[in-house]
Amino acid sequence: MERGSAAEAPVPTTPQHILDARQFARPWLEETLFPTTRTLQQTPLSALPQALRGKRLFYLFYEPSTRTRVSFETAAMLLGGQVVGIDSDEQRARDERLEDRIQVLNQFPYEFILLRYHEEGGARRAAAVSRVPIINAGDGTGQHPTQALLDAYTIWQELGRLDGLQIALVGDLSYERTTNSLAYLLGRFRDLTLYLVSPDLLRMRDEVRDYLVASGVDVHEVPDLREVASGLDVVYMTRAHTERLEHARRYDRGRRSYAVDAELLAELPRHAIVLHPLPRGRELPADLDADPRIACFRQAGNGLYLRMALLSLLAQGAPEA
Amino acid sequence: MERGSAAEAPVPTTPQHILDARQFARPWLEETLFPTTRTLQQTPLSALPQALRGKRLFYLFYEPSTRTRVSFETAAMLLGGQVVGIDSDEQRARDERLEDRIQVLNQFPYEFILLRYHEEGGARRAAAVSRVPIINAGDGTGQHPTQALLDAYTIWQELGRLDGLQIALVGDLSYERTTNSLAYLLGRFRDLTLYLVSPDLLRMRDEVRDYLVASGVDVHEVPDLREVASGLDVVYMTRAHTERLEHARRYDRGRRSYAVDAELLAELPRHAIVLHPLPRGRELPADLDADPRIACFRQAGNGLYLRMALLSLLAQGAPEA
Amino acid sequence: MERGSAAEAPVPTTPQHILDARQFARPWLEETLFPTTRTLQQTPLSALPQALRGKRLFYLFYEPSTRTRVSFETAAMLLGGQVVGIDSDEQRARDERLEDRIQVLNQFPYEFILLRYHEEGGARRAAAVSRVPIINAGDGTGQHPTQALLDAYTIWQELGRLDGLQIALVGDLSYERTTNSLAYLLGRFRDLTLYLVSPDLLRMRDEVRDYLVASGVDVHEVPDLREVASGLDVVYMTRAHTERLEHARRYDRGRRSYAVDAELLAELPRHAIVLHPLPRGRELPADLDADPRIACFRQAGNGLYLRMALLSLLAQGAPEA
Repeated sequence: MERGSAAEAPVPTTPQHILDARQFARPWLEETLFPTTRTLQQTPLSALPQALRGKRLFYLFYEPSTRTRVSFETAAMLLGGQVVGIDSDEQRARDERLEDRIQVLNQFPYEFILLRYHEEGGARRAAAVSRVPIINAGDGTGQHPTQALLDAYTIWQELGRLDGLQIALVGDLSYERTTNSLAYLLGRFRDLTLYLVSPDLLRMRDEVRDYLVASGVDVHEVPDLREVASGLDVVYMTRAHTERLEHARRYDRGRRSYAVDAELLAELPRHAIVLHPLPRGRELPADLDADPRIACFRQAGNGLYLRMALLSLLAQGAPEA
Repeated sequence: MERGSAAEAPVPTTPQHILDARQFARPWLEETLFPTTRTLQQTPLSALPQALRGKRLFYLFYEPSTRTRVSFETAAMLLGGQVVGIDSDEQRARDERLEDRIQVLNQFPYEFILLRYHEEGGARRAAAVSRVPIINAGDGTGQHPTQALLDAYTIWQELGRLDGLQIALVGDLSYERTTNSLAYLLGRFRDLTLYLVSPDLLRMRDEVRDYLVASGVDVHEVPDLREVASGLDVVYMTRAHTERLEHARRYDRGRRSYAVDAELLAELPRHAIVLHPLPRGRELPADLDADPRIACFRQAGNGLYLRMALLSLLAQGAPEA
Repeated sequence: MERGSAAEAPVPTTPQHILDARQFARPWLEETLFPTTRTLQQTPLSALPQALRGKRLFYLFYEPSTRTRVSFETAAMLLGGQVVGIDSDEQRARDERLEDRIQVLNQFPYEFILLRYHEEGGARRAAAVSRVPIINAGDGTGQHPTQALLDAYTIWQELGRLDGLQIALVGDLSYERTTNSLAYLLGRFRDLTLYLVSPDLLRMRDEVRDYLVASGVDVHEVPDLREVASGLDVVYMTRAHTERLEHARRYDRGRRSYAVDAELLAELPRHAIVLHPLPRGRELPADLDADPRIACFRQAGNGLYLRMALLSLLAQGAPEA
């Protein structure tokens, strides 16, 4: 899917595959996916619709992804579905063309394939040969669209809207697929101001920033989160203690901070929220967790219900078993 | 089980353990296992007999085996059974006598044990102490009988019979347990011509070839697949890019080919099929997949239904839970 | 929980978390847990109470633990529950604070968390933040309380009582969490004589021995199991071929034995039992298994039913889903 075509011709119905954060139409998010997620979240467990009864999800992981796997596996289970899969450790033992793996799965009665691949473009390659929906659970430094969906849902759920917000993305904005994917998704919304706070070596890639600008987002690169904190609605943190970020900070001579601390929280508006895809490091110290604006665990919980909603909606569109 | 006794006294009913491709009687294959497999394959998923309801399969893997594990796990699940197991990675952490593992499982309510072991004879050792059926999912360079069964079923399903065929086995015929096991199973059928196409260093082991000759199979070693292609019904390929085969080819000065290409397909009869246990390498290029004679994915799909049939039949013979 | 307070104020009802072998009150063991286990063991599989229907167990393993995982997973499954988890291999890929993992799980509908942690105190840290019961499946060289429970149940089941017995603990009594945990549990019973048979470098830790003495257990360190064999009711063996024990034996100049052999069995009373948490090495040779006093496989089987009982009892006390 070309970026342009996605922007110009949004699909109003549930897409066949979940590959790229740019593929989702705004009405589908606001009128279908997010309300479905909220409804599921408010439903007692014992009353959940068994939308996946008699359906099966297969996960195929070329890289470890405990968080995403557990979230989808639990989601499928709560909807009455069954889950089987192949972990990254097993993948290493014998390599096999991705397309061959998918063609074998085409012969097996699975209704969904959840794929994590180690290289950008893996999900799209899989979708080209799969007879059932491919859900991209991360492809290298590419995208992680269901993370972007749960991040956007969390903002919508906590603040009531996505339009007109001031959002800071903080940390490694170049290689982190979570911020790339979220940025693409935010391009769907209006009157957004996006502050990019990253070391010089880890600036957001031109292609993502250009997409945001073309989508009408007001994008600013700022050297320090503190400069803009008092006006923010959302702070989106990423892991600060990766090797990549440590190296980039040495290059910047460590003068800037990519962390949340008590001082920053004091600046931040009372209604604002701090998100983090987890696992976190020292950039979001646990001793601040009592502050209700630290929303990262609510965000992780939302991931379960967002994925339940997604599977339910895909199941409605999927061919009969 | 001695080879001789197996050949002379075929068991007409479902065996207790699945250990060795030589143990299956021809009437059981043609009148029970293969028709049961075909019936399951033609049954809508929602109407599958829940032959494993209230039954449990345990997989115990000392070597990785994603393909076989996924196939059996899906088969058990579709028949209403439950699956728990131990992967090869977990095995490495602490070693324990195989017999002890089985004796502990004897105390647990599992109705089937699927075993992959790293040394020849593991399945037989396990069967000697197990109170429930052991299914050999590969033991070192020994056998992989359920792979042989699905290979033979694929030939029966695609060509309507196994008698009177001309079959080429190609590649590493010494260490590959798939070709060893299939060769043993083919010994049950009549008027077969078997062409063995392998490097000198990886010729079929004497014990297997002697068994075939004693069973009345017309066995020929040929240096090049092309020589015999025009008369073949089945080409059975194996992985050509293992270290072992690369070494053996250098020894042969690389003059021979163990691969399928367009030229070879042009020689092959229109009704012939090309099988491969997967994963494949360059010996079966993906750009030939559009040719309907390339049957390796149908073969992998058959594995699911063959294993469902096998579990169903074993369940009928298994003691009550 | 302080040791003193645990000893003085036993909890008569099922505890909220399973953390430490010292936390169990004797009446709860003898009037609730052990009889429930025995009843489950005598119930036909098809009539087992589905006490975990609609409930889910999550296992979170920072170290491998196939034995304990399989036992709990089977137990939950037989009671109608569902199991999802994260293995130690996946943990290594990305580290994350234990407390964060638990806080994410707090957002997911799991009714039990089974935790194996690589450092002493992990289970207690998890319990401090978890909204559902934490079951300690071993924390470093700390405890393994459900192993102690199944060991004690096995003695109760095989010999009819725990009071007044003569028990030998053999091998590495310093770092093995099984013997530490069992020793703590035995402190609840009366008129016990405990013989500790270990190399000088691997003597039982002072804190454990002091606890036993304060609990009224008659504790003796003996250099050789043979000295006391004729009066024993229970021999509890541990792995003798760990690196630690081999080193400690060289220090002792290898004069002592920590193994069972035919000579020792000849000394042992006819009613006595030999236990071992498995996996075993040469300290309990397989060629003695025909002796009915070797009870290690019955012991492993008891583990399944003990854990079913424990989950059932915890489920009764757990908050409604």
